[in-house]
Amino acid sequence: MRKVAVIGVGETRFSAAQEKTGVELFAEAAMDALNESNLKSKDIQALFVGNVLGDFSEGQGMVQAFAAENIGCFNVPANKYEGACASGSMAVRDASMWVASGFYDIVLAGGIERAATMGTGLATRTFAMFSDARYEFPSGITFPAVFAMLAHLYSARYDIPMEKLREQLAAVSIQSYKYGSFNPKAHFYGKYGDIAMEKILGSFVVSSPLTLHDCCPFSDGAAAVVLASEEVAAKLTNKPVYIIGTGQASSGPLCSQSEHLPRIRAREISSQRAYDMAGVKPQDIDFCELHDCFSIASLIAAESLGFFEFGKSGEAWVKGEADIGGKVAINPSGGLKSKGHPIGATGAAQVYEVVKQLRGEVEPERQVEGARIGMTDTLGGDGGTLVNLILQRGW
Amino acid sequence: MRKVAVIGVGETRFSAAQEKTGVELFAEAAMDALNESNLKSKDIQALFVGNVLGDFSEGQGMVQAFAAENIGCFNVPANKYEGACASGSMAVRDASMWVASGFYDIVLAGGIERAATMGTGLATRTFAMFSDARYEFPSGITFPAVFAMLAHLYSARYDIPMEKLREQLAAVSIQSYKYGSFNPKAHFYGKYGDIAMEKILGSFVVSSPLTLHDCCPFSDGAAAVVLASEEVAAKLTNKPVYIIGTGQASSGPLCSQSEHLPRIRAREISSQRAYDMAGVKPQDIDFCELHDCFSIASLIAAESLGFFEFGKSGEAWVKGEADIGGKVAINPSGGLKSKGHPIGATGAAQVYEVVKQLRGEVEPERQVEGARIGMTDTLGGDGGTLVNLILQRGW
Repeated sequence: MRKVAVIGVGETRFSAAQEKTGVELFAEAAMDALNESNLKSKDIQALFVGNVLGDFSEGQGMVQAFAAENIGCFNVPANKYEGACASGSMAVRDASMWVASGFYDIVLAGGIERAATMGTGLATRTFAMFSDARYEFPSGITFPAVFAMLAHLYSARYDIPMEKLREQLAAVSIQSYKYGSFNPKAHFYGKYGDIAMEKILGSFVVSSPLTLHDCCPFSDGAAAVVLASEEVAAKLTNKPVYIIGTGQASSGPLCSQSEHLPRIRAREISSQRAYDMAGVKPQDIDFCELHDCFSIASLIAAESLGFFEFGKSGEAWVKGEADIGGKVAINPSGGLKSKGHPIGATGAAQVYEVVKQLRGEVEPERQVEGARIGMTDTLGGDGGTLVNLILQRGW
Repeated sequence: MRKVAVIGVGETRFSAAQEKTGVELFAEAAMDALNESNLKSKDIQALFVGNVLGDFSEGQGMVQAFAAENIGCFNVPANKYEGACASGSMAVRDASMWVASGFYDIVLAGGIERAATMGTGLATRTFAMFSDARYEFPSGITFPAVFAMLAHLYSARYDIPMEKLREQLAAVSIQSYKYGSFNPKAHFYGKYGDIAMEKILGSFVVSSPLTLHDCCPFSDGAAAVVLASEEVAAKLTNKPVYIIGTGQASSGPLCSQSEHLPRIRAREISSQRAYDMAGVKPQDIDFCELHDCFSIASLIAAESLGFFEFGKSGEAWVKGEADIGGKVAINPSGGLKSKGHPIGATGAAQVYEVVKQLRGEVEPERQVEGARIGMTDTLGGDGGTLVNLILQRGW
């Protein structure tokens, strides 16, 4: 199989409710990605997008085809992927295979969502359909409750008093807010950059022990990346970023995962597949955009990805080991917590961030200097779908 | 790239509203496909499914992951595809690439839907979101209206009086009902096999000129197929069916297609891509499962696929040229009209039928004797997504 490079990336500002349609949001991200790639719309051979709530948020189920037509990619194959928060990553991973196989040379992949437009309450209720529809959703469990339960389990399993764990979780949010405040694309750009721990601990409880500041916002936004074969990339850019490893795994409903929780087994399998394919280890990763839909999700993710020992990642955050200059820089974009979470776009947006970081093109306050290898991590549903991508500088 | 074989297929009975969940329906189809393939669940390396209305029909957005776990395919990558009626075909096409590339040897692909459970009215209204959300859906257009308008355009463009066209359309339904009545998996098995033209012409008008018997039913059902590399297939079966050509194309909303209508441009491009990849021509196709969501859709499809001249396919049906023993046998399964239309499963079910036909395993009344090459055709939305697959006997 051929090497696959990311040669251009684009992203809208992630935001609260706004008036652009999904098709229009995608156009903004996609045209930036095309311009960066020195390509025109007619050069794109296929288009893969993630989108989850489009039918609920704007009554548009066929967004992939209309998004393609709207940017002048006439009659290309256009696929829509759904795997909850992992949808955009699924689209990028599949696109990479079509290029790796030799079938296509240039594919546009990305994601679209108007989750904020739906309103947080309705979006949260609707999105709960991505947990189990037989036992979880009907019992009233939404995702804040899932992660609140994981926080309790985490506290019990690793014998960390809840008071201490809550401070560790606050440290996660503080770091994410700091970097998001410097990121002009972030939902919380310019906000909460100097938030105090007391403010986080004292904010209103969403689902105990998680407070408002433990939870990411739902956002509107889109992201797009252009993938090309090594040969095509060489003609178009002197800064290709190669996708050197991809991994994906699934799980059944939470009740099927109980022997593993709070560890997410699918993530351990998915990331190992990505590491094996890339031929690298966790300690080779310079920075990682991981799925911090809730602060507790960051601790769980960082451990399953192999960055810190189980039960120890809270300490790592407190000590700065998960920060720029530490062992591995986590979410220098601000992560879902501060950059925002346009569900179907999130995975593609992580790739956007990794590519920008590897090129050294982000704001100085949040640049991981000299980074050579970056990783993405998206968790769909309550562990139903995990996707990991590993990318490396090609120069 | 490697040759890709279908080595096992499974399908539920297509039906009116029933009580099994999507996960359970898929299990039924998938276990049949696995058993036919002489494989166990643990042999499956990835699982790709199409599903469109699952969040609306049963509040289950993460069906692909839970479907995988439910049949013992633990932790495999599991993707869900959405492209309206073409979803199942997208899943099969993508799965074929992962095998062709050499990344996986064995992949399970299929589709799931409980469209009948929603009730025809609600399903029709919900499904209208797969047309354009800005101008079409808000104006009250549902899919029966889209195809009714295409019938009027067809009548005008090819100068066929509506009375004559209606008789041609009835001939399409009569043929589909005939074969579906012999197909034990069909929604209308044992029904309407000897329906009279007068009955069809006199049934209630859904959207003029289309009557009830011009329209396919929405169905519950699932289908699954096992794809394997040529090397693996050789060890497991002496009747491999090879996927020799795949094509896919997209279009914008209907208003962007007006210069082509009633021809569906994306279908002409998609099928040409499949023919080119397969190295065959329309006259090499022995039979075709095409997307007859409405009787007029059959005429339009058969022409765009190159089987009959534009404006002439109604005559072809009347003369038996689209029948078994004619120029090309269309929908010997009964098609969407009589076999039924479980939206996300339809494309995979077409592959099921093609494989069964090529193996000579269907009921004698509807077997296309000596068939060597079969084709599938699915149209998603009002032309937004087209997928064509061409399959050939490997023995």
